[in-house]
Amino acid sequence: MASVTCTVYAGISYGRPPSSAANSKHRRMVAVRAETVNPDIRKTEDKVVDSVLVTDLSKPVTAYCRCWRSKTFPLCDGTHLKHNKATGDNVGPLLLKTK
Amino acid sequence: MASVTCTVYAGISYGRPPSSAANSKHRRMVAVRAETVNPDIRKTEDKVVDSVLVTDLSKPVTAYCRCWRSKTFPLCDGTHLKHNKATGDNVGPLLLKTK
Repeated sequence: MASVTCTVYAGISYGRPPSSAANSKHRRMVAVRAETVNPDIRKTEDKVVDSVLVTDLSKPVTAYCRCWRSKTFPLCDGTHLKHNKATGDNVGPLLLKTK
Repeated sequence: MASVTCTVYAGISYGRPPSSAANSKHRRMVAVRAETVNPDIRKTEDKVVDSVLVTDLSKPVTAYCRCWRSKTFPLCDGTHLKHNKATGDNVGPLLLKTK
């Protein structure tokens, strides 16, 4: 069987693969589309924007999700810990403090 | 040249590819690790957590980044628009309003 190398361009890449690689006779290119940050939350909305009236905050600290995996989005439920462990990522919440 | 199928496991996958596929003589497997949400910001930190003392907010509305691509992180600089266009995502900022 002929030897075919699969070259995968993963992660965030807004451009095309290098033309020298794309033109090679010896490579089969697999372009992986840049990943979305939000896999599931309110995908019927064009853009998920949330507002907080800070005078409504009742607790000394309220954590807001930035990993887009919280079951209580826009609030943080700690799911970033699982995401970070699974992917090697380092995301964490935004803490709103009233004092 | 022999026909070789490249099967790409992209996106979020915390397990291994199916063993039946991995053992196939007719497929070359390319495993793509689950994507991180944050490609660049403060990667020397185990977890990026930011705090806002809401009594310090001086403007009626302040936008905080949730796409992890802002050049002014933790503040939003509008880069989510480019990210959404490039990936089909729908992420947007958290707006902190003082009134």
